[in-house]
Amino acid sequence: MPKILAINAGSSTLKWKLFNMPAEKVIAEGMVDRMGLPNSEFKVKYGDGQKYVVNQDIPTADIAVDMLLKAMLDLKIISDYKEIEGVGHRIVAGGERFKESEKLDEKSLKEVEDLSEYAPLHNPAEADGVRAFMKLLPGVPEVGVFDTSFHTTMPKMNYLYSIKPEYYEKYGARKYGAHGTSHRYVSHRAAELLGKPLEELRMVTMHLGSGVSITAEKDGKSFDTSMGFTPLAGVTMSTRSGDIDPSLVAFLMQKLNITDPEKMIDILNKESGIYALSGLSPDMRELEKTRDTRPASQLAIDIFANRIIKYVAGYVAEMGGVDALVFTAGMGEGDIVMRKRIIDGLSVFGAKIDDERNNVMAKERLISSDDSKVKVLLVPTNEELMIARDVVRLGK
Amino acid sequence: MPKILAINAGSSTLKWKLFNMPAEKVIAEGMVDRMGLPNSEFKVKYGDGQKYVVNQDIPTADIAVDMLLKAMLDLKIISDYKEIEGVGHRIVAGGERFKESEKLDEKSLKEVEDLSEYAPLHNPAEADGVRAFMKLLPGVPEVGVFDTSFHTTMPKMNYLYSIKPEYYEKYGARKYGAHGTSHRYVSHRAAELLGKPLEELRMVTMHLGSGVSITAEKDGKSFDTSMGFTPLAGVTMSTRSGDIDPSLVAFLMQKLNITDPEKMIDILNKESGIYALSGLSPDMRELEKTRDTRPASQLAIDIFANRIIKYVAGYVAEMGGVDALVFTAGMGEGDIVMRKRIIDGLSVFGAKIDDERNNVMAKERLISSDDSKVKVLLVPTNEELMIARDVVRLGK
Repeated sequence: MPKILAINAGSSTLKWKLFNMPAEKVIAEGMVDRMGLPNSEFKVKYGDGQKYVVNQDIPTADIAVDMLLKAMLDLKIISDYKEIEGVGHRIVAGGERFKESEKLDEKSLKEVEDLSEYAPLHNPAEADGVRAFMKLLPGVPEVGVFDTSFHTTMPKMNYLYSIKPEYYEKYGARKYGAHGTSHRYVSHRAAELLGKPLEELRMVTMHLGSGVSITAEKDGKSFDTSMGFTPLAGVTMSTRSGDIDPSLVAFLMQKLNITDPEKMIDILNKESGIYALSGLSPDMRELEKTRDTRPASQLAIDIFANRIIKYVAGYVAEMGGVDALVFTAGMGEGDIVMRKRIIDGLSVFGAKIDDERNNVMAKERLISSDDSKVKVLLVPTNEELMIARDVVRLGK
Repeated sequence: MPKILAINAGSSTLKWKLFNMPAEKVIAEGMVDRMGLPNSEFKVKYGDGQKYVVNQDIPTADIAVDMLLKAMLDLKIISDYKEIEGVGHRIVAGGERFKESEKLDEKSLKEVEDLSEYAPLHNPAEADGVRAFMKLLPGVPEVGVFDTSFHTTMPKMNYLYSIKPEYYEKYGARKYGAHGTSHRYVSHRAAELLGKPLEELRMVTMHLGSGVSITAEKDGKSFDTSMGFTPLAGVTMSTRSGDIDPSLVAFLMQKLNITDPEKMIDILNKESGIYALSGLSPDMRELEKTRDTRPASQLAIDIFANRIIKYVAGYVAEMGGVDALVFTAGMGEGDIVMRKRIIDGLSVFGAKIDDERNNVMAKERLISSDDSKVKVLLVPTNEELMIARDVVRLGK
């Protein structure tokens, strides 16, 4: 059976899953952590829960990929590199160039690198990962799966900012969104679960992880999404501020004696969100544990839910209604209380949660009550599977 | 009958209305334009449509106020300065200090000036106006009416950004909103027109002028509003961008070789919005005239309506429903087509416009159909009257 590798490379991490396709079964998965930093960690899970861990310096993606392939042989996950019939790579920024997943060659990989200014921490690292596999698995197709592709169907009305059109035409300043592979996966899966064609459903999918994005799907396509030019915009996140008055960038730079605007944006990305509001943790579970004793934890929870409710409502209105609301990703899958809070906040649309159905984690399930006017679903995301499917479809 | 003067001073303008109170009748009104610039203009309308215009340099507020008072005598609008029993001043930024309109003395006027960093173009000019009247009309009460006061009732959940709490505590970085006097006036008036106590109505008021702000009113108080730390945030406006990804501030500064962040914010305030999108005009009337022939005009109209619809929907959801939607200010009062467009975009809440009732400009009127689930009203704003009323109430 063909094996397909799905790769998710960050600036210092490389996560992977090996699938048997078309069975869509995960044979092994693993992660390289602290890549390029001292004392990197190399982990593999395989077989019936076996684990393999190595701690040593892993300075480059080339070395990480080499270790990964050798480990697969050593651990007898594969018996020959030839069994790997394709590799798919998550790539954060596809700009307007990559409207779909695409088989990568030297030319298109260069285009991925050219888009680095839209994702300076991600695209170069992801391109490095692709090159490492091209070198070690020559002739094996490499497919790029872009976080932004799903959102390239948004109408101009929704992706343009109200700024000079030349900023868009010359510099690409527009809304690109993110988490596209996740929104695409869960919206398709939700339609299957509801037994209706996706094209006939108006849906809002909520990807609630450490990054949070809300997407409106209409006619089977992304119609609007909360993340913006970068993943900073939109709702409150773990460490990201989401939307703020742009004037605050200038005001706070002056107050904090910051001269480089990127430094200010860095603070908004890494030292804000529920982490800043709570003064405790970027992890919602920590806030929920302490909500009764720490008013700041409760406030962070309230703000987090409130911003999501407002975005969802805006999307429902602009679609003229909604058939399904879908939760996914870490918090979306695991946070029973937050799901209830959000759906209660959308009662104006006749959405009602069923507490018993909602009392579940990370399982595909309808969680709305029978008399809810809107179907509410929990659909665990599976970006890696979506990547593997795209490799099978495009990696010829 | 006591006469009350309502003053609205900007950086280079001073608008005024003289009321007979409590009859609430405007006896005269006027404007000083290009104050502090060469060839200023001084205009008065009075009596039965008489006009008085002078063109000469008016370098300071002191001189403008002196001219204004003398003209009132000369034109026999008043026969003695003593007839003016109070002066009310619109002040843009009241911060958290001014939760209500307030009689101003030297101490509180100093506090108005201390708030100048929140409205650098307005507060200093407004304070100058107050001082000029204090000098020329000694002993006459001066009342400050703040654009932000109405919004000081917002819950913390809605006025805090998801940034470090110290930015709020030390520097006052929070949502203040604007147009408070207008939202206050029209929400009270709408409740009167509906014959219900304001406290029992959930309302969204849309102030659609060259600045646009949307406010949610619950329990008779401002619950949320679209403008932010400054009037730049929120929906698309005539020349203001409204919300954008804060990352774009840094990105565009780099692309445009701008080193001063205030310069970038200036572009977002003055060279953006429907003016930039249309490439034609900041005036919606111009765009509507050309919508059939210029796609950019149509796009700007679409974006303008879309952003308002999304904000209103978010507010309806967070209030758990809505009883009344209210249009006011230039476009809100005059733009029949835009009102219909926005209400059509809110059909998910059961709001329906009545085309015949809506075919009106600047008149108090219910414009929803009888089967609309939400009352939709047109209420011309009257900030100056609200100011005059506050002077009567507080100027003892």
